[in-house]
Amino acid sequence: MIVVINNKNSNTKQLDNLKSWIKGLGLDIDVSEGTTHTVLGLIGDTSKVDIDLLRSLDIVDSVKRIQEPYKKANRKFHPEDTIINVNGYNIGGNNFTMIAGPCSIESEHQIVSIAKELQSFGTHFLRGGAFKPRTSPYAFQGLREGGLTLLLKAKEATGMGIVTEIMSAEHIDLMKDVDILQVGARNMQNFELLKALGRTNKPILLKRGLCATINEWLMSAEYIMAEGNNQVILCERGIRTFETYTRNTLDLSAIPIVKELTHLPVIVDPSHASGLSRLVRPMSLAAAGAGSDGLMIEVHNDPCNALCDGAQALLPGQYNNINKEIDIMLPMLNKVRN
Amino acid sequence: MIVVINNKNSNTKQLDNLKSWIKGLGLDIDVSEGTTHTVLGLIGDTSKVDIDLLRSLDIVDSVKRIQEPYKKANRKFHPEDTIINVNGYNIGGNNFTMIAGPCSIESEHQIVSIAKELQSFGTHFLRGGAFKPRTSPYAFQGLREGGLTLLLKAKEATGMGIVTEIMSAEHIDLMKDVDILQVGARNMQNFELLKALGRTNKPILLKRGLCATINEWLMSAEYIMAEGNNQVILCERGIRTFETYTRNTLDLSAIPIVKELTHLPVIVDPSHASGLSRLVRPMSLAAAGAGSDGLMIEVHNDPCNALCDGAQALLPGQYNNINKEIDIMLPMLNKVRN
Amino acid sequence: MIVVINNKNSNTKQLDNLKSWIKGLGLDIDVSEGTTHTVLGLIGDTSKVDIDLLRSLDIVDSVKRIQEPYKKANRKFHPEDTIINVNGYNIGGNNFTMIAGPCSIESEHQIVSIAKELQSFGTHFLRGGAFKPRTSPYAFQGLREGGLTLLLKAKEATGMGIVTEIMSAEHIDLMKDVDILQVGARNMQNFELLKALGRTNKPILLKRGLCATINEWLMSAEYIMAEGNNQVILCERGIRTFETYTRNTLDLSAIPIVKELTHLPVIVDPSHASGLSRLVRPMSLAAAGAGSDGLMIEVHNDPCNALCDGAQALLPGQYNNINKEIDIMLPMLNKVRN
Amino acid sequence: MIVVINNKNSNTKQLDNLKSWIKGLGLDIDVSEGTTHTVLGLIGDTSKVDIDLLRSLDIVDSVKRIQEPYKKANRKFHPEDTIINVNGYNIGGNNFTMIAGPCSIESEHQIVSIAKELQSFGTHFLRGGAFKPRTSPYAFQGLREGGLTLLLKAKEATGMGIVTEIMSAEHIDLMKDVDILQVGARNMQNFELLKALGRTNKPILLKRGLCATINEWLMSAEYIMAEGNNQVILCERGIRTFETYTRNTLDLSAIPIVKELTHLPVIVDPSHASGLSRLVRPMSLAAAGAGSDGLMIEVHNDPCNALCDGAQALLPGQYNNINKEIDIMLPMLNKVRN
Repeated sequence: MIVVINNKNSNTKQLDNLKSWIKGLGLDIDVSEGTTHTVLGLIGDTSKVDIDLLRSLDIVDSVKRIQEPYKKANRKFHPEDTIINVNGYNIGGNNFTMIAGPCSIESEHQIVSIAKELQSFGTHFLRGGAFKPRTSPYAFQGLREGGLTLLLKAKEATGMGIVTEIMSAEHIDLMKDVDILQVGARNMQNFELLKALGRTNKPILLKRGLCATINEWLMSAEYIMAEGNNQVILCERGIRTFETYTRNTLDLSAIPIVKELTHLPVIVDPSHASGLSRLVRPMSLAAAGAGSDGLMIEVHNDPCNALCDGAQALLPGQYNNINKEIDIMLPMLNKVRN
Repeated sequence: MIVVINNKNSNTKQLDNLKSWIKGLGLDIDVSEGTTHTVLGLIGDTSKVDIDLLRSLDIVDSVKRIQEPYKKANRKFHPEDTIINVNGYNIGGNNFTMIAGPCSIESEHQIVSIAKELQSFGTHFLRGGAFKPRTSPYAFQGLREGGLTLLLKAKEATGMGIVTEIMSAEHIDLMKDVDILQVGARNMQNFELLKALGRTNKPILLKRGLCATINEWLMSAEYIMAEGNNQVILCERGIRTFETYTRNTLDLSAIPIVKELTHLPVIVDPSHASGLSRLVRPMSLAAAGAGSDGLMIEVHNDPCNALCDGAQALLPGQYNNINKEIDIMLPMLNKVRN
Repeated sequence: MIVVINNKNSNTKQLDNLKSWIKGLGLDIDVSEGTTHTVLGLIGDTSKVDIDLLRSLDIVDSVKRIQEPYKKANRKFHPEDTIINVNGYNIGGNNFTMIAGPCSIESEHQIVSIAKELQSFGTHFLRGGAFKPRTSPYAFQGLREGGLTLLLKAKEATGMGIVTEIMSAEHIDLMKDVDILQVGARNMQNFELLKALGRTNKPILLKRGLCATINEWLMSAEYIMAEGNNQVILCERGIRTFETYTRNTLDLSAIPIVKELTHLPVIVDPSHASGLSRLVRPMSLAAAGAGSDGLMIEVHNDPCNALCDGAQALLPGQYNNINKEIDIMLPMLNKVRN
Repeated sequence: MIVVINNKNSNTKQLDNLKSWIKGLGLDIDVSEGTTHTVLGLIGDTSKVDIDLLRSLDIVDSVKRIQEPYKKANRKFHPEDTIINVNGYNIGGNNFTMIAGPCSIESEHQIVSIAKELQSFGTHFLRGGAFKPRTSPYAFQGLREGGLTLLLKAKEATGMGIVTEIMSAEHIDLMKDVDILQVGARNMQNFELLKALGRTNKPILLKRGLCATINEWLMSAEYIMAEGNNQVILCERGIRTFETYTRNTLDLSAIPIVKELTHLPVIVDPSHASGLSRLVRPMSLAAAGAGSDGLMIEVHNDPCNALCDGAQALLPGQYNNINKEIDIMLPMLNKVRN
């Protein structure tokens, strides 16, 4: 960590106080004095340094981290890709993983029939929303416990791995048979939930918050890992920008960057970012091209509810076409669909 | 709510399906057919309509709300300012409320002595962090239960109302003697926490999320109110933008807008937005000018820890000067410091 | 266009004044009165309506466009893809166009040798910066007129189409032998320049502004087209967001959306968005997957300047590998590299 | 400037090449080698260093400026406030300057009568739009040359200083009798225009671009100053964020920061940021509280055009009330309305 001191704003006493405080954190200091600025190089484990406090000091012009503040998630200390085996299938490494299913679980028939159809396309992971985070308290909040029961029936019927969102640490026991617990964008910095999930042995699919920097996203992964659970799958799902044509802006440049910074698998959810089903195909191909380790796609199969045709979810046939196109791309990306 | 249908993308069957679905929600429809577009006016209680689902339909060009989706927080249905009496002092209406105190509670001496000094300036509310949300799992997380105990000692010693952050519904009982429970920016859409707080009878200070629109912020207030707790105080604390000189961008235009949209009190936290103590004074005066109902300011009084001079927190004397300047402005703003 | 009037804030006289003003613009009005709101549907050519003025009226709650404000750029009125023939090669339609070359033109040898190498890879368009927009007045501003002369020598030597940036209408004559004139992101709303370019017969490559909405970008294309020049090629190059790991965030979701809204060709510049050469390959594949009509990539071939290895620009061999990978993708995208 | 080298990605030859290149720019280097990173401190005039090029090198982890890249605009080298005397009145220092007038110049009667009324309130500067930058080519573009003539008649009639927007260097001669030339937000990085204005002897009012960082804004001031014209007045007018209730988000924290970084006067335009006249008063008071050196406010006085009541512009009486409230605040801000 580099701390730049403004000589004009500081006196010897203040600088000495700062140095003592830094040494008190167990760090060494390399001092390089200039005419207008003095640069302190902090040597040692700087992950405990409160960078905001340093930045807020009047004598400090700016602070720059050299080492990333995350350790367990950091590729520097763990160069090999993390591969997470879930239900017999590998996620990460050279595997390309498809996760598909409906936004909300509605009925046993709905979830079981769509699971079977997805499985026939070679998809091994089924997603379905039981507990739904909604902006409005008056909107449908999912079938909750009832939805979970139905999702488990689809698991029983197909053997697929199941993925569902958890919104509170109090639901961990309830979800003991779920294969992958999803943390939604709005809870990415619900630190009490992250800590509790870090004490489970479940793979966690951690969505990026709407305005989370890459660094904050990885720090949230670190929260889970710091408690002992290394099975974190990152999921890019769009960030909030000034552009309003799409619900959010899918940040695909984040994929190659995050793959450099961490050894954890990174997948993309192209359905939620745009909110438009006709963007799912192009953004799925784009995500694969950007180096994603997989996709999470909304698929529904309810022919009675014509309302939903063309909504955020794809029909099974449209989904299967994306699978085939991804298969054309995977060899040049050195990946295999598992 | 107005739904604009693209005639080219839609056929009669799809449009009929959509109309049936809308009527199934208990709404009436006013149809106005144009050559290229058909406009549906939805009449009735549209707060349950899933606007994202509507928007995602291929036949729908766009959707526009006319009525705000919040009801209990809406000034249209509650034109009078909500005034919340806490510990004998009113917040909201023509009152200007100061809340002050240290970022973190460190010791009994620290919190009691600063409380007494603040009280001597006419401040009736003491803030102090016991449970601290931190980006890094390795950073100091606050004294937690121990910090709360110390804060309650300061309450006992001064009779001041106390304000502290709650990060999990599991801590509600623990905080039964706290006067105002604060929901931090990162938990603004932790809906399970909001619902639980809605079932308490405590005033809730709801900070705006870093990338929350004004509408989402009010919907989070509505989550609390929908459960029966109408004592919500909104707090603007900066939004995330591309500008990096300040930690966040204080959105003061939000103040007059939110005052129009809702009857709830709205205060400003100028300390956290900028992260720089020398910006606290100008942004406090600016917040008062913009029409804020109060301020929440970090103040520390630890003369031993010279490191912190000039950090995010003000010294008591600096804080008191702001009080005096605010007092000059209040008459023209038709407010009184309470 | 739909104008929502707040009945509470308006009286009959104000509403009548507004209606007269609207009719004075040659528009018809469809009025639908509700209890709390009155909705005016404006029928006719609303492209001249000042939407900001309408929005700012106290009696107006909100305004919503139904018809896009651009006409000549609008796919609704021109459903077929615009194909622009430049120097014998087609851009747009089912063609995938590669534009490559160095950021700055440095010497005749540099630009001619790289042009020949790019041509040997089947690339028909050469880019090179002569006039360089720089944030700092003290930074190298390009060779200007001298750079242009060198670029034209490379055209002479290879017959390639050349693309270079124009920063002022005063340079139009100087650039009479350039094949495609590029408008940079910072000049996207330099309306006097756009109008002047609209009076030329040159194809214009219009980069998206750093904080331009899709709508504003298309309106800038419309500025050029309104003057009679329909040869506009759009170029996505990243938008400014809160994320700072990359210089800008490449907004690839914009590609399928813009292809829906307009008939103009849309290409992607993956080099400038990230500012990192190692992101060019993944973002090029991603752009192709998203449906881009081509790519503009920085390539340099100066083996003496080892400094630049690994900078924003690719080496020719790295560039050629991307060409080969794009070729694998094009059949499934129904495109051919031209 | 500090350049952090990643030891793992670099070899001796690359590092030597980089050092030679830096020395070739006339800079000295202070090297501090760590186990994982090597830190280069660049000593000397770093304003010519291409920071983007440095950042894009594979061996470079990150780059941090210590000295700001602007010199003439920098308060470090010019600690005293710049005071610009225009038409006998001082702008900057302890002066608080009001600039007011209509958005568009419509007629001689309109502009002369409003000028007289503003003058009667003690306002010495009249703004009026002759050349109007509009998002749409079909919208009213101002009366252009004709509007300018009318504005000069108002100057003749009142002796007020006049302020109007310039959109192209070709109009400099035309505007030789204008007192302050305004550069609009969209032209903030129209570098050819900035350079041309730097060669005039006119005060320039430089609006902040919609997505300009504070640093970029000051670099644009530097473009003007580098050509010899030091009379630059900065004007904050809102930045683009995700929030859509207001047209833009007025960034008032920028005021105290910019006052620290530069000696130039900084004023605020509260009318354009929000686009709503009822926000002008609170945001004017807020701007004064934040330490602004003045305000630029839209005022219209056309009783015939009832349409505009309540639009972005204030009526003269509303404007005068703001003047009176500002007067209450100025003593505590150590400022006088001039």
